[in-house]
Amino acid sequence: MLYYTDSIERLINSLTKLPGIGRRSAERIVNYILGADRSEINILSEAIKKVKEAVRFCKICNNLSEEETCKICLDSRRHKDMVCVVENPSDVLAIEKAAYFKGVYHVLLGSIAPLEGRGPADLKIDSLLQRIKQDNIQEVIIATDADTEGEITALYLTELLKPKGIKLMRLGIGIPMGSNLEYADATTLSKALESRRPI
Amino acid sequence: MLYYTDSIERLINSLTKLPGIGRRSAERIVNYILGADRSEINILSEAIKKVKEAVRFCKICNNLSEEETCKICLDSRRHKDMVCVVENPSDVLAIEKAAYFKGVYHVLLGSIAPLEGRGPADLKIDSLLQRIKQDNIQEVIIATDADTEGEITALYLTELLKPKGIKLMRLGIGIPMGSNLEYADATTLSKALESRRPI
Repeated sequence: MLYYTDSIERLINSLTKLPGIGRRSAERIVNYILGADRSEINILSEAIKKVKEAVRFCKICNNLSEEETCKICLDSRRHKDMVCVVENPSDVLAIEKAAYFKGVYHVLLGSIAPLEGRGPADLKIDSLLQRIKQDNIQEVIIATDADTEGEITALYLTELLKPKGIKLMRLGIGIPMGSNLEYADATTLSKALESRRPI
Repeated sequence: MLYYTDSIERLINSLTKLPGIGRRSAERIVNYILGADRSEINILSEAIKKVKEAVRFCKICNNLSEEETCKICLDSRRHKDMVCVVENPSDVLAIEKAAYFKGVYHVLLGSIAPLEGRGPADLKIDSLLQRIKQDNIQEVIIATDADTEGEITALYLTELLKPKGIKLMRLGIGIPMGSNLEYADATTLSKALESRRPI
């Protein structure tokens, strides 16, 4: 049986590895690429390569950045003594969209997940402790996801930070239990930040 | 408000131009790309560029090909005197999947769509007439889509080819009216080919 050409099959194979792209979607994308302007497709191809080359983690907060230090950490208007601890860079974006929080972030780059073999040592917790010691941080808002891994991570951080005598907060009412932070809408996130409660 | 980094925003903009990819899907794909191996992402980036460079239209039938002539036209086991006329290369693939048809194809690269300003001159009809004259073609199966544009195209081709004295056929029972050929399943397509009817 004769199928697509080799280079089309190779592209379909690559595309189906992406999240949410099945074979049928990949075929539609290939058809689009074949019909599109060459310049547009070169831009797409370069953009994919560029993201992988240019984007790294901020050396202070581990947020995504194209410089050593991310734009939020460099922004003098942000309150450096208030740190919101999240699991992933996408959580930073979700909170930034709510446009309520004026502090800075600390991205753990994951959560504690014993069933998947991820412990506290796999997260950026050491650098959080160092920031708390060095940067005169007054308040830490733990904004991990409201699912099991997020709650375990929050609990671990609470045990760890409680003795340090800083104001320790958890995201307030508003987040539906069992949901992921990055899917919360902007209003819910504003509410949750506004009504944050001490742990 | 601070959003993603520049190169991420550029990639999201490129991705959302693809069919079926909204901003949320693009963000998920970007997250996947950021976490994936660099080698895998380079393969994807190159595959996109390569498809655009390597794939062209067969000089005989206008099917997708990486050589001057496509594999089907080069295959000596295919009956060269029986031509199946389809709108797009994806239709060739759909019929090939059914593994019933043993003739060759002619891809029109479109359909007649007066409302969108596409007339017969925009389709590869001249080269079809030339093949019929030169290649001793006995039977033409018109397998355009069963939607309005496809029916108009079929009607136009019928008027054009009827006087030539060749056996002129239309795809048989089995295709639901108003549907696109490329979404038909293999069995339906086999049935439709088997019970093709003279026009």
